[in-house]
Amino acid sequence: MKKIIVLNGPNLNLLGQREPAQYGSHTLQDVQVLCETKASELGYALEFLQSNHEGELIEVIHRAGRECKAGETLGVVFNAGAYTHTSVALHDAIVGAEVPTIEIHISNVHAREAFRHHSYLSPVAAGIVVGFGVKGYGLAMEGLVEKFAG
Amino acid sequence: MKKIIVLNGPNLNLLGQREPAQYGSHTLQDVQVLCETKASELGYALEFLQSNHEGELIEVIHRAGRECKAGETLGVVFNAGAYTHTSVALHDAIVGAEVPTIEIHISNVHAREAFRHHSYLSPVAAGIVVGFGVKGYGLAMEGLVEKFAG
Amino acid sequence: MKKIIVLNGPNLNLLGQREPAQYGSHTLQDVQVLCETKASELGYALEFLQSNHEGELIEVIHRAGRECKAGETLGVVFNAGAYTHTSVALHDAIVGAEVPTIEIHISNVHAREAFRHHSYLSPVAAGIVVGFGVKGYGLAMEGLVEKFAG
Amino acid sequence: MKKIIVLNGPNLNLLGQREPAQYGSHTLQDVQVLCETKASELGYALEFLQSNHEGELIEVIHRAGRECKAGETLGVVFNAGAYTHTSVALHDAIVGAEVPTIEIHISNVHAREAFRHHSYLSPVAAGIVVGFGVKGYGLAMEGLVEKFAG
Amino acid sequence: MKKIIVLNGPNLNLLGQREPAQYGSHTLQDVQVLCETKASELGYALEFLQSNHEGELIEVIHRAGRECKAGETLGVVFNAGAYTHTSVALHDAIVGAEVPTIEIHISNVHAREAFRHHSYLSPVAAGIVVGFGVKGYGLAMEGLVEKFAG
Amino acid sequence: MKKIIVLNGPNLNLLGQREPAQYGSHTLQDVQVLCETKASELGYALEFLQSNHEGELIEVIHRAGRECKAGETLGVVFNAGAYTHTSVALHDAIVGAEVPTIEIHISNVHAREAFRHHSYLSPVAAGIVVGFGVKGYGLAMEGLVEKFAG
Amino acid sequence: MKKIIVLNGPNLNLLGQREPAQYGSHTLQDVQVLCETKASELGYALEFLQSNHEGELIEVIHRAGRECKAGETLGVVFNAGAYTHTSVALHDAIVGAEVPTIEIHISNVHAREAFRHHSYLSPVAAGIVVGFGVKGYGLAMEGLVEKFAG
Amino acid sequence: MKKIIVLNGPNLNLLGQREPAQYGSHTLQDVQVLCETKASELGYALEFLQSNHEGELIEVIHRAGRECKAGETLGVVFNAGAYTHTSVALHDAIVGAEVPTIEIHISNVHAREAFRHHSYLSPVAAGIVVGFGVKGYGLAMEGLVEKFAG
Amino acid sequence: MKKIIVLNGPNLNLLGQREPAQYGSHTLQDVQVLCETKASELGYALEFLQSNHEGELIEVIHRAGRECKAGETLGVVFNAGAYTHTSVALHDAIVGAEVPTIEIHISNVHAREAFRHHSYLSPVAAGIVVGFGVKGYGLAMEGLVEKFAG
Amino acid sequence: MKKIIVLNGPNLNLLGQREPAQYGSHTLQDVQVLCETKASELGYALEFLQSNHEGELIEVIHRAGRECKAGETLGVVFNAGAYTHTSVALHDAIVGAEVPTIEIHISNVHAREAFRHHSYLSPVAAGIVVGFGVKGYGLAMEGLVEKFAG
Amino acid sequence: MKKIIVLNGPNLNLLGQREPAQYGSHTLQDVQVLCETKASELGYALEFLQSNHEGELIEVIHRAGRECKAGETLGVVFNAGAYTHTSVALHDAIVGAEVPTIEIHISNVHAREAFRHHSYLSPVAAGIVVGFGVKGYGLAMEGLVEKFAG
Amino acid sequence: MKKIIVLNGPNLNLLGQREPAQYGSHTLQDVQVLCETKASELGYALEFLQSNHEGELIEVIHRAGRECKAGETLGVVFNAGAYTHTSVALHDAIVGAEVPTIEIHISNVHAREAFRHHSYLSPVAAGIVVGFGVKGYGLAMEGLVEKFAG
Repeated sequence: MKKIIVLNGPNLNLLGQREPAQYGSHTLQDVQVLCETKASELGYALEFLQSNHEGELIEVIHRAGRECKAGETLGVVFNAGAYTHTSVALHDAIVGAEVPTIEIHISNVHAREAFRHHSYLSPVAAGIVVGFGVKGYGLAMEGLVEKFAG
Repeated sequence: MKKIIVLNGPNLNLLGQREPAQYGSHTLQDVQVLCETKASELGYALEFLQSNHEGELIEVIHRAGRECKAGETLGVVFNAGAYTHTSVALHDAIVGAEVPTIEIHISNVHAREAFRHHSYLSPVAAGIVVGFGVKGYGLAMEGLVEKFAG
Repeated sequence: MKKIIVLNGPNLNLLGQREPAQYGSHTLQDVQVLCETKASELGYALEFLQSNHEGELIEVIHRAGRECKAGETLGVVFNAGAYTHTSVALHDAIVGAEVPTIEIHISNVHAREAFRHHSYLSPVAAGIVVGFGVKGYGLAMEGLVEKFAG
Repeated sequence: MKKIIVLNGPNLNLLGQREPAQYGSHTLQDVQVLCETKASELGYALEFLQSNHEGELIEVIHRAGRECKAGETLGVVFNAGAYTHTSVALHDAIVGAEVPTIEIHISNVHAREAFRHHSYLSPVAAGIVVGFGVKGYGLAMEGLVEKFAG
Repeated sequence: MKKIIVLNGPNLNLLGQREPAQYGSHTLQDVQVLCETKASELGYALEFLQSNHEGELIEVIHRAGRECKAGETLGVVFNAGAYTHTSVALHDAIVGAEVPTIEIHISNVHAREAFRHHSYLSPVAAGIVVGFGVKGYGLAMEGLVEKFAG
Repeated sequence: MKKIIVLNGPNLNLLGQREPAQYGSHTLQDVQVLCETKASELGYALEFLQSNHEGELIEVIHRAGRECKAGETLGVVFNAGAYTHTSVALHDAIVGAEVPTIEIHISNVHAREAFRHHSYLSPVAAGIVVGFGVKGYGLAMEGLVEKFAG
Repeated sequence: MKKIIVLNGPNLNLLGQREPAQYGSHTLQDVQVLCETKASELGYALEFLQSNHEGELIEVIHRAGRECKAGETLGVVFNAGAYTHTSVALHDAIVGAEVPTIEIHISNVHAREAFRHHSYLSPVAAGIVVGFGVKGYGLAMEGLVEKFAG
Repeated sequence: MKKIIVLNGPNLNLLGQREPAQYGSHTLQDVQVLCETKASELGYALEFLQSNHEGELIEVIHRAGRECKAGETLGVVFNAGAYTHTSVALHDAIVGAEVPTIEIHISNVHAREAFRHHSYLSPVAAGIVVGFGVKGYGLAMEGLVEKFAG
Repeated sequence: MKKIIVLNGPNLNLLGQREPAQYGSHTLQDVQVLCETKASELGYALEFLQSNHEGELIEVIHRAGRECKAGETLGVVFNAGAYTHTSVALHDAIVGAEVPTIEIHISNVHAREAFRHHSYLSPVAAGIVVGFGVKGYGLAMEGLVEKFAG
Repeated sequence: MKKIIVLNGPNLNLLGQREPAQYGSHTLQDVQVLCETKASELGYALEFLQSNHEGELIEVIHRAGRECKAGETLGVVFNAGAYTHTSVALHDAIVGAEVPTIEIHISNVHAREAFRHHSYLSPVAAGIVVGFGVKGYGLAMEGLVEKFAG
Repeated sequence: MKKIIVLNGPNLNLLGQREPAQYGSHTLQDVQVLCETKASELGYALEFLQSNHEGELIEVIHRAGRECKAGETLGVVFNAGAYTHTSVALHDAIVGAEVPTIEIHISNVHAREAFRHHSYLSPVAAGIVVGFGVKGYGLAMEGLVEKFAG
Repeated sequence: MKKIIVLNGPNLNLLGQREPAQYGSHTLQDVQVLCETKASELGYALEFLQSNHEGELIEVIHRAGRECKAGETLGVVFNAGAYTHTSVALHDAIVGAEVPTIEIHISNVHAREAFRHHSYLSPVAAGIVVGFGVKGYGLAMEGLVEKFAG
């Protein structure tokens, strides 16, 4: 069974307790459950990860690229958190690993501070889903499947 | 039966013939069919519109606002085309009419010219879907329902 | 009896329901009544218009220019709404039609988003009235009369 | 009898001789007469002041704040001249003293040098009147009364 | 007989009366006569249009694109007036409709206000003619024929 | 007994009544008491001053420089208020008078309007204390003593 | 006994050997001793940490947040070194973990290169101490206690 | 017989071999032939020059100015190549020598790198012709004659 | 005997002790002697002033304007110090009072911090002398006489 | 035998598979062989490292600094990949550790996206080699030896 | 007898005929006479040169540097015309040749177009004289002598 | 024997005497010797040139292009000096002549003034070598050979 990787970046382990007005009251565990349900509806396995380390996120992208080439993984749904706005290295990882990547943000980053309006990932993302709360993960997974499956 | 309005802005009547490398080969009629199918799956009626006139788009938003208040319409999926980048008036229409609006772009605007990176609609959109081709309309409709239906 | 034209741009038909914290609870009909009272105090007839279409607003300005030259109209009190910030064409219409124009804003645009701080109309306006709520229409009409009437 | 304070900033003592093409031929004494007439029409006393010293202007604003709280003064009509464009301290004085302040400019500052297009006072002004020549003082006084008088 | 479309944008109906120092004393009717003479010299029919509505201009471009594909029209000579500087939608219309378009300006826009120095049309224009007064229309028509006629 | 000068700029005389959400409810008299206690703990005399006049603040700095050279004063704790952001002259006074100066702000200026993020004093301050409320005065005095005493 | 965490970011392990003109000759071990003395004076335990890894610093902030909620830790004195200027993720960690954080810099960052003048931490810091050399750590600890201790 | 000067700047001697995708396959000799034909149609002599030296181009403009005053030369058609974007001295030469100058570019400079979008010559050019390939020289010559002859 | 006014702004009273590497070791008294000698060579009386107060400098300019009109004063040699870079009010005073003003700087402001490269006085100065040390005062006085004396 | 350290940053482990049009088809193993050959020609040992973690790269630089002081290492040839453009911490590490560092890029970063044109490392690099493909490593090693070897 | 070199850049050979409103009616020959008179008053020989070629101006500066070292020349009074605003090479020539250079402009460049407000020469000029008309040459020569003559 | 051209731009004839702290004490003659030795090691002839004239440098590039096509020259090592930062014409010459060009700078331009951080040559250079002093010429020649020699 082919796999979808849902990858979460810095501070997303705080979900549910972090700024509920922006991010809602769901925890990352709730998101994982939501993604497992959606994956199973779509006929995919799920790998669900979180890291606060830019280097680790880069290396998950690299591995995902190898798995995509091997036909084991369909692609990555990536909430890069704050690294969205500062990481050229993640931009390069997505391009270099040639991994289909859907960028997702829980909150509407365009309605917040100016430094959240620019994303280094957007120009290399296969699709972008913003502002639907944690339900956006499900939409992003669907979008990944619609765009890249068979 | 409640309605979803799918609203298309300038030049989208050219879809299918316009820059196929950016927008694909589907026509706006194909998109309408796709949206009708999705609406019916989601249990909604569909109103599907296109206009090249900023003033007409504003007025559809105003009417949608009245229909939302009357419980006849759930919200708007809005591909504002080039007006995305230049229209403060559409920004104000969405806020003024208090209509739940999902912003959608067929192509990845962030991978194109710099003047397409800024959207006046994003800060007031309830959700944003970018870069999934015409299938993004379906995702946007789902997202609208997930966020605003009962 | 000479006429004053009070011209309203996009979304002003929503007045009263649109963002009452910014714009107050008066409707555009209330504003029309207020303007009629003021016009009659000042000894002028009133033409009161609203359009969401940039092209129509341009053409009202053109007609006003012709009426001014014919001595039928004194000038225009113009709340261009969002077009204030984006329309070079309205700037050019005012200059081209040589029509005395008072720019008015109900809310204090300088206390809001940065994109509302610049006006294409201000450099060619004969006077500017900002932030007095709907009562600013009356002040603008007085100002027009004081500056241009015999 | 309640009081309106009309406060004039740097170089306004030169009025009438200073750049008549921009400011007209009325002197500051003429403006004072005009304001006295208007105050008396509106049923208010007038205090009319001019200073070239930023510190003195700040202190008038402070005193006005105390008088407003004591019900002795309605508010300030303030032509801050060049300090409009450079004084954060006057911005802070208006906010700190909680004094209703109408910003006024005789000339159309938006039709002049770029450094006159930004005002530190506008975001904290209760209303703004620009470009009506010395008659703008009268409009500003009316606007102050309409907005703040019981 | 193949056709050249000469398309004029906002405020150009004021030609002859509008800022004669910038635009000269010829009216739009004079320009039409000039263009008819030139078309006939070049062996083409002429369609001569003006609109103040961005949406109508977009739709003329769309129709021109269809006529070009049908071999009925050679291309468009387009004076977009103020929309030159603000309309991404007209940029997209030209690209989307694949219509050979010559951009023309009567006055030297580069010798005027900074906001007239940028054109959204230039990057997609087949040729640009600026500053020759109304005679520039004739040069633009010739240039269109030289570049695109068999 | 050597002296510490605590110098306060424009609008700080309003402390306690001015924007309590930003500045708290302590008055400048409270701050003076707090500073006197701290000075006496540290073994210094206190001179406590406030002025709304840039020129007077410059001249206090000059005098402080002379007193420092004479060994009568240790240095200045300076809350320049709004002049922080606009006064090159105070920057020059500190450099010219060679007076050890600690910059202090009661509120967190970096969490407020963009124009408060830049300080002309910071590059020439011996230390900077921001955001501790009125208690920051005490920290600044300690810091001055730790860095410059014996 | 409640704890204060003193957290040091990248390159601070080089203290004492790194650019002594900027940072002085004290080593990080010296700073630890200084902080232990100050903690003990203030009646707190000390946890003193350094890491060159952004991800590890984020995770210390997260843990500190949990300890603050549990009443075990008062807050964090944070010298984020170069990450001050580039890390949105640390900004988000401080907000998300709701941990009282005092920002400290040994050198006067505002007297150095322009890229050191902006801090992503300042808008979310509870207080800021800059330029007092290693003694600033003590001031920051005092400030933390003054602002947050019961 | 009066003369038209066609003046070519740096690298135009490479025409035909230089970036044919931008500039086409015509050589500068071809352009000269084209210009001679056009001059003779228009009833003028032709002087055709190329230089890679800014100083030499300045001096041709100076000489042209003297010849214009003497009635020997009508004006200059000037392709300044890369100096268009960097030479204030050529701007000044055109103004100083009071010589009617038509600016021409073979390629569409506005569709290329950003540094080619600004021209120091445009504000002082009598007309501008861009993007018609080498045929633009003929249009420019016609435009010069239409605007300045008799 | 007609008078030249030499006017010095903030911090110039520190001359000789202030940053000798920038300003040299001459005191303001030395400058006054130098100016008296030069005035007497040129056949003029001298009024030599210094103030740290922007308002006072404005009022000297105003008085100078009246004296110029009365034929008592030739003009002003003005070293505005730091106010050069921040004072729109002094710019307006020079224009409003119509007083011939030579701007002088002792040090080469263009070789120092970026914020010293812009002068609000330069556009309205009759001449500018920079970087000659205190001897520049003499040159400025000569320049004033050469340009404005009968 | 003294050592040269060749240090590679994020995504360079993908070399050979990553964007071959930019980076060529050589793998990082090929680069290591190339560097070993060159080191041995130059009479040095080689340590060849890659990491995707900013913190690890910082710590290699720190260790290199200690080894340089001990005479065990000559310096570092550093391809920091994407961290080149975002890492102030690596800038500080090079300065703090006082390690001779040659910056190298395989591709011509100046011919790519604008965000690759700025390097935080360049101002503190001892030399820079850009655009020679993987052969640039050899040139960089030579340059290091020429500049720093006895 | 030691020499002063007066060096004039592009377009200054047009003096007297070029934009008399900016530059007056004196020719370059008049300036030469004026400089000869002044040189002789000051006890120096004069070399007076003009070139439109940047390379030639560079080489005059180089030669002047050699002559200064040989004690034959005191320095250069340099009106670089338009190259002032664009030539880094002349900046480098002055620094490299170590030649005392007084920058002069006849007109007030700060009252003209924005691109004339920046000078590459100012940071390396020994003194600057602006806006005194051709008489500025004499002041600049005096200033050179006062600053550099024994 | 094939040839390498080493081309030097403005002010490089001053090498050895010009700012030795930046450029070292080697003269251009020393560089020529160094390049001859290196050329002979690499098996190439050397043509070594310097010019202060932009036009001459352009023409050397043109000739080099012809010689490259004829197989007589391998490419150019180009130190364009100050023209690096200002010359679009040299950028165009390199592209137009299709000549392999290695950009070299003796000093580290990125550690100097901001105007030296941008190079018009870098985007079209085949390789870039910065900051190795005069030894960089040798590295650049090797790089040229490694990249372009059969």
